[in-house]
Amino acid sequence: MVSMEQSKFEEKKITSRAEDYNQWYLDVIEAAQLAENAPVKGCMIIKPYGYALWENIQSFLNAKFKATGVENAYFPMLIPERLLKKEEKHVEGFAPEVAVVTHAGGKELEEPYILRPTSETIMYEVFSKWIRSHRDLPLLINQWANVIRWEMRTRLFLRTTEFLWQEGHTVHATEQEADERARQMLEVYRDLAENYMAIPVIMGIKTEAEKFAGAKYTYSIEAMMQDGKALQLATSHNLGQNFAKVFDVSFLDENNTKQYGWQTSWGISTRSIGGLIMTHSDDKGLVLPPKIASIQVVVVPIIPKEWDAQLVGEESETICASLKEVGISTKLDSRNIRPGEKFFEWEKKGVPVRIEIGPKDIASSSAVVVRRDTGEKKTIPLNEIAGTVKTILEKMQTDLYEKAVALRTGKSVSVDTWEEFEKAIDENKFVYAHFCLDNKVEAEIKELTGATVRCIPFNQVKEDGICIKSGLPSKGRVIFAKSY
Amino acid sequence: MVSMEQSKFEEKKITSRAEDYNQWYLDVIEAAQLAENAPVKGCMIIKPYGYALWENIQSFLNAKFKATGVENAYFPMLIPERLLKKEEKHVEGFAPEVAVVTHAGGKELEEPYILRPTSETIMYEVFSKWIRSHRDLPLLINQWANVIRWEMRTRLFLRTTEFLWQEGHTVHATEQEADERARQMLEVYRDLAENYMAIPVIMGIKTEAEKFAGAKYTYSIEAMMQDGKALQLATSHNLGQNFAKVFDVSFLDENNTKQYGWQTSWGISTRSIGGLIMTHSDDKGLVLPPKIASIQVVVVPIIPKEWDAQLVGEESETICASLKEVGISTKLDSRNIRPGEKFFEWEKKGVPVRIEIGPKDIASSSAVVVRRDTGEKKTIPLNEIAGTVKTILEKMQTDLYEKAVALRTGKSVSVDTWEEFEKAIDENKFVYAHFCLDNKVEAEIKELTGATVRCIPFNQVKEDGICIKSGLPSKGRVIFAKSY
Repeated sequence: MVSMEQSKFEEKKITSRAEDYNQWYLDVIEAAQLAENAPVKGCMIIKPYGYALWENIQSFLNAKFKATGVENAYFPMLIPERLLKKEEKHVEGFAPEVAVVTHAGGKELEEPYILRPTSETIMYEVFSKWIRSHRDLPLLINQWANVIRWEMRTRLFLRTTEFLWQEGHTVHATEQEADERARQMLEVYRDLAENYMAIPVIMGIKTEAEKFAGAKYTYSIEAMMQDGKALQLATSHNLGQNFAKVFDVSFLDENNTKQYGWQTSWGISTRSIGGLIMTHSDDKGLVLPPKIASIQVVVVPIIPKEWDAQLVGEESETICASLKEVGISTKLDSRNIRPGEKFFEWEKKGVPVRIEIGPKDIASSSAVVVRRDTGEKKTIPLNEIAGTVKTILEKMQTDLYEKAVALRTGKSVSVDTWEEFEKAIDENKFVYAHFCLDNKVEAEIKELTGATVRCIPFNQVKEDGICIKSGLPSKGRVIFAKSY
Repeated sequence: MVSMEQSKFEEKKITSRAEDYNQWYLDVIEAAQLAENAPVKGCMIIKPYGYALWENIQSFLNAKFKATGVENAYFPMLIPERLLKKEEKHVEGFAPEVAVVTHAGGKELEEPYILRPTSETIMYEVFSKWIRSHRDLPLLINQWANVIRWEMRTRLFLRTTEFLWQEGHTVHATEQEADERARQMLEVYRDLAENYMAIPVIMGIKTEAEKFAGAKYTYSIEAMMQDGKALQLATSHNLGQNFAKVFDVSFLDENNTKQYGWQTSWGISTRSIGGLIMTHSDDKGLVLPPKIASIQVVVVPIIPKEWDAQLVGEESETICASLKEVGISTKLDSRNIRPGEKFFEWEKKGVPVRIEIGPKDIASSSAVVVRRDTGEKKTIPLNEIAGTVKTILEKMQTDLYEKAVALRTGKSVSVDTWEEFEKAIDENKFVYAHFCLDNKVEAEIKELTGATVRCIPFNQVKEDGICIKSGLPSKGRVIFAKSY
């Protein structure tokens, strides 16, 4: 029995990337049932299939964080206004986008509360009490939480008023240790992006204009989306002693002398799921790298006649069991709807591998295995299914990563003149260009082309050159791009 | 080297239960470093050692929920005021304790937002769009989230302005299926409480006065704390069609006729950790049942002379490895402080088993194993450590549960006269008494004694009787108690 709704749903076509990239993105999310707009301005509802991706990211990061000694904790969502105001640049950066609680328990509050846009201020007020001596360091805290930033223009996952994230906050006795920690956590994000989400990224330092409000240095990982625009996937900040001095995060060193702590903070949010979608998906819908997919394989029984039901059902279950045995997350779709509808649905949902099994396949002791990204179909002997599927999943994970690298390579260019620069930015490329690192010049370039410096890459080649815009001397190329 | 802070910390004594039960509770939390008051009125900071308990509760419940088909999702924290106001009794119950966002992005909002005190209204507004046909049912959604209820009198874990919880929300085609689901989830909570947290609970139905605002029936699990007062650990609501009718959560049945859904919601919060603390801890500090303990065993090397360091260190690591191999979460405490300080610290933190190992033990191929709750010390041959500790942990889990059952039995009483009733309530007992189930009579009893009906137990014996207060006829005894 086919429901009216499903038939209707099937008719709704995903806009192609060529036709309208932004609409394609939204269509993919809708078709895969990842999320939808909430009846609350700028907020989204993360639906179960989308939330499962976030849970997988959480598991990956929790294991990596804990292995480096980081512990999870939870701090209040409400921040007294006076705390937010303590660090000058921080409040300047966040004040325009905060939401304010003015009334509670039926009364106007004496002091308004801010909904956390990030938790430096509330945490460091407390860290100041927790830390007394050098023996209390390093302090390594992480929090999984929701945050609120009042955004004017929002888009599912990429920019929403409320989003989910983790924010790590650490305190160290030395500047060097803090900087190493900030870079270490960036490396964890790179690991997540490249080895789990199959998204190639560039690690680097942000310019003054783009760094976190209150940080000394901001490090980031930057990915290229299929349209050539950049997406900042995660950031890690060396906060220096800026906050430590304002919040008195200090300790007595081995000589009993008061010292201020050196701090870091680092985070990744549900925004990264937007990057995942835009990196791999195609005009048929979502494509998920096997490692992050909550369903890696779907088994679809083909039952042409009622009397085939038992045999096919049993064989399907045997296949599922053999896949689960080797650690592959498998779903048996035995719903009473046409196989074609199932194929279509799981394709839109980006399940990496589909297995079709019917009476004819069973007669020849085989099943049909279909790979989501390439569409490649193979007939595989039943006793080889588990091994073959495992290999296909591993291959697909690597292939998706390499495809994304190839796309980025094709859309990256080094330029030395302003004309070339404008043209390359206009074509949505990653543009390697000499730059004088001056704030005003960067603002001017943004105004003229829409591009910003994504980062000064860690692997920057030192070479003397001349800034693309100001003509001032430069010591190496930075990456300019339009970004999400 | 012993730090000043540690010595000072050691001096701070935990108030005994006999001296001041409420102060004892707060002292245990402080000494075990579970949580502390935040610089935000009524809010708490959940410290790493406390948050680990919540993570364990999350893992337990996620597995159980998912096994019954429930999927996790995430809905916005901000609820438009008009939504909260839709269900009359619901808004009546929650309006006095909501916090309101009136300004955001530098402007006054046209419509204020409420910070979710619970998510029925925002979820059901959305469910109404998700559900079209009987084929979309049952809908089984759970959310892990923070909620805000503006409480006047707060206490760490037990009652805080912001707390963490999970809230499950389901929609069904029939009243029977909804009621079965509500009871099924209560059973999951019972399983968590009794088999994981070692807290015996009584399952039952709430009276009209105590049920959830907007529910048809509220089921709960009720535990007795060591002072005899009751703590409601979790609730599960049969919402009937109350919300469905207001939010139009409806579906077309098999005859294409519109029907309203039958709904449930159910939740447990960080409050349960307060119950855990109060059930098992003693005057020396926290006591944790082995299953929920993030550290089940701590190994403390005893190094009287410098030259013993290597031998003792190696043997300690061998013990840790052998325990981890059998799945026991073990910590090696090799800090350079006196063993006595370590014993004291892990005792306060409620680690179930401590192992002491020094040169003399090694000489006799044994180690000393100490059980946290009983203080029992045993010398165990090294090659039997893993097996013995496993048995001790299992025994301790059961013993803690049974000790709590015995306490509850000792403080439970059946009464038939008002005088007996007043006396028993005054002695902080669970009082089984006949009751007419009248709202006004319940309010009067509460006014006079401070006791409320904790529940009408599922296993209530049907017997004719006379209400303890009104003299009206009753069909069975309910449980009265003072409560947290």
